[in-house]
Amino acid sequence: MKIIIIGGVAAGAKTAAKTKRSLPDSEIHIYTKDHYVSYSACGMPYYIAGDFQDWKQLIVRSRSEFEKNGINIHTRKKVTKIIPSEKKILIEDIDTKETEYQEYDKLVIATGAEPVIPEYVNELKTGKNYPEKIYPNKIYPLRTLDDGIRLKQGMMNSKHITIIGGGYIAIELVEGFVKNNKKITLIERSQFVLSMLDEDISALVQDYMAEHSDNLLKIINNDTVKTIDEDDKALKITTEKGEVFSTDMVVVALGVKPVVDIASEAGIELGKTGAIKVNSRMETNIKDIYACGDCVEKINMISNNPVWVPLGSTANKEGRVCAINISGGVEDFEGVMGSAVLRYRDLNISRTGLTEKDAIKLGYDTASVIITKRDKAGYMPEVKNITLKLIADKRSHRLLGAQAIGCGDADKRVNTVSIGLLRGITVEELIDVDLTYSPPFSTSIDILISAAQILKTKINQSF
Amino acid sequence: MKIIIIGGVAAGAKTAAKTKRSLPDSEIHIYTKDHYVSYSACGMPYYIAGDFQDWKQLIVRSRSEFEKNGINIHTRKKVTKIIPSEKKILIEDIDTKETEYQEYDKLVIATGAEPVIPEYVNELKTGKNYPEKIYPNKIYPLRTLDDGIRLKQGMMNSKHITIIGGGYIAIELVEGFVKNNKKITLIERSQFVLSMLDEDISALVQDYMAEHSDNLLKIINNDTVKTIDEDDKALKITTEKGEVFSTDMVVVALGVKPVVDIASEAGIELGKTGAIKVNSRMETNIKDIYACGDCVEKINMISNNPVWVPLGSTANKEGRVCAINISGGVEDFEGVMGSAVLRYRDLNISRTGLTEKDAIKLGYDTASVIITKRDKAGYMPEVKNITLKLIADKRSHRLLGAQAIGCGDADKRVNTVSIGLLRGITVEELIDVDLTYSPPFSTSIDILISAAQILKTKINQSF
Repeated sequence: MKIIIIGGVAAGAKTAAKTKRSLPDSEIHIYTKDHYVSYSACGMPYYIAGDFQDWKQLIVRSRSEFEKNGINIHTRKKVTKIIPSEKKILIEDIDTKETEYQEYDKLVIATGAEPVIPEYVNELKTGKNYPEKIYPNKIYPLRTLDDGIRLKQGMMNSKHITIIGGGYIAIELVEGFVKNNKKITLIERSQFVLSMLDEDISALVQDYMAEHSDNLLKIINNDTVKTIDEDDKALKITTEKGEVFSTDMVVVALGVKPVVDIASEAGIELGKTGAIKVNSRMETNIKDIYACGDCVEKINMISNNPVWVPLGSTANKEGRVCAINISGGVEDFEGVMGSAVLRYRDLNISRTGLTEKDAIKLGYDTASVIITKRDKAGYMPEVKNITLKLIADKRSHRLLGAQAIGCGDADKRVNTVSIGLLRGITVEELIDVDLTYSPPFSTSIDILISAAQILKTKINQSF
Repeated sequence: MKIIIIGGVAAGAKTAAKTKRSLPDSEIHIYTKDHYVSYSACGMPYYIAGDFQDWKQLIVRSRSEFEKNGINIHTRKKVTKIIPSEKKILIEDIDTKETEYQEYDKLVIATGAEPVIPEYVNELKTGKNYPEKIYPNKIYPLRTLDDGIRLKQGMMNSKHITIIGGGYIAIELVEGFVKNNKKITLIERSQFVLSMLDEDISALVQDYMAEHSDNLLKIINNDTVKTIDEDDKALKITTEKGEVFSTDMVVVALGVKPVVDIASEAGIELGKTGAIKVNSRMETNIKDIYACGDCVEKINMISNNPVWVPLGSTANKEGRVCAINISGGVEDFEGVMGSAVLRYRDLNISRTGLTEKDAIKLGYDTASVIITKRDKAGYMPEVKNITLKLIADKRSHRLLGAQAIGCGDADKRVNTVSIGLLRGITVEELIDVDLTYSPPFSTSIDILISAAQILKTKINQSF
């Protein structure tokens, strides 16, 4: 059996490695536009920050490891066409421009996502497609490992950096830039950074960032970039609202979009989010063509709606499920729950389930509570605060989501909620959970239980 | 309404405070043998260690706070008799020996637990009952705040300390004694310390302790103390197996037992664990008599069996439920799940649900897995290992319990499992959980998911 996998970062690499273990006699090829396969893209902000020095540490499985296991790696190869009727693909060598056809028995599309590049940057570009196009010297996306290596170089040579966008990666980069003593201007279209949180939480994150950036960070909210002009030494940024400033480099961190062109052209169905539609076994609508990772749509297990949430942890899970099904087993990927975490310096920021704003959009009648409490017994020297938001459905009392931030152990509380969401736990049931207690780890009544108790009262009083 | 509460550490204090908020006109009295009310007994090992200096920090609500809120505190008062037919109790002043009767409308028994004191210590005792009896100068239990203050004084004056027992408190004390540069001999009857863990995990804890005690700790396993002889300067310990050594002080940490004498004498039903039997509203078999905290039996929510697990977090929850029901509301305490955590220096040790040995005793056909994995992405500077054990029922695939130890964030994984246990989650469902991922917080496939994947394969292969 000949298996071709397009893309080799997380889902593609995982599919290849696991399929080869199950089917040692299969012939497996990974084709990727990238210079590298199997790396932790999520780790790049920490490489850029200098938390570790060698980008090679980001490689999960090296090319030679794959080859030793009998998996064929083809880098700098762009798949330009899928021909399902003939079960073959057309491949172009990015450097030599040579093309070739390859036949497959099973095809896995793991083309991932690419950065959203706004028009004002595209006007400056050289006309090639990401990632092979070379952006103007001082403009940096962050998606591939090449991007990460280049961005770090750029940072080293800059005194002032502008970040366009205020999502996860933007915030992680601010941490690294502050650590390297760079001046930063961050431009965020919304009122606060991190629009994947409710505003009552994201406002607190932004306050913390303002107070903990060694006076290096300026955040411009409710505005966006209108033009970027180049001169010899710097870039001149003009915002929609008319702010004008000079900067040494620009990081474009406006999010990503799924890479679906060749799939779509081949007749593979996309979902309503614009990403590839697959069933729980990672099968597309075309026989023997699978898709997994950031290029596919997922089901949100709370709302049962299709969503597109590109995350490395999900890509790995999907790659595993894809491999099992390709190998003749049966395994389902049930979906995502909107769980995420990031760090800004000492502040941990995490969420699971639906935000309140998303829940309201979906038609839920929500009740919510926000409380701040210590993460450990008050007398322990390392005690810190956490702020926790719980969101529930007033009608069924079912928990819908949680958000937690704090210098204390916020993430722990959110993961605890996540498994409850999977089983539709109610606010009342959360009160019953027996959480571990000892003074270095929590208060005797954990913030999660306190919040659930208050939310229960609130729901009952609202009728 | 006149409410009398016997005992005022955690459950009693919580019941009093919450009842007074709901029923401001009620007359509430706390009677306690202790000098203090409302303190964190769990925090004493950290006070002894010197993590903070003032034992008053352990006080949750001060006596004057209670009195300001109209709650009457009677310390050093021993309730010697409950007379349900007349709805009154007999009280003896420990210092003056004066007695008095007090009538109640509702009575709450929150008498807690007391240390198990072995015969070889009792032979040395002065004949009084704990806690008012004064142990021989160099022998220390640890239960009340008085005990904690006294134990710390003893430690300061000792060079070599013997701990009898190897449970939670023993281990927490070892941390503090090492920190204070004391030589320690710990005598544990079992093969390893922490018998509330499975041996494959507790063996690892003991190994860690042996390697991380600055050469101050000696552990004697499979043995126990036979006699303690006093001379002027030191104590001479003789073990059952014939070891003889000299020590400056002895800590008796052989666990605790519920204080149920006056309840039992009054006709209040005890459960098969020997603790007071209550329903989910904390009502005993006698009308208007409630009980909560360490003196009552609980239901294990996994096995539905009665268990006796004295923990501060549970006592607080029971106090809350007791107060709501006394105040005319309706609230249930559903039970416990065997969740617990402790720290030994950098090692976090936690468990939830059933251990494998307990599950087997209860008749489950168990499958289990133990894996060791990083707690964060391997390239992050602060990365540490965790070892996780998952236990499941082979027949239903239902998860039964988890144990995790490690210098990394082990406790987080166990709490995540705990909420799943509440809803009878299966191994397959655990694989589906969407856990937060970012390099500073976990690996892209968290150890919990990896362990569940292996356990699933193991269960399926076993048929």
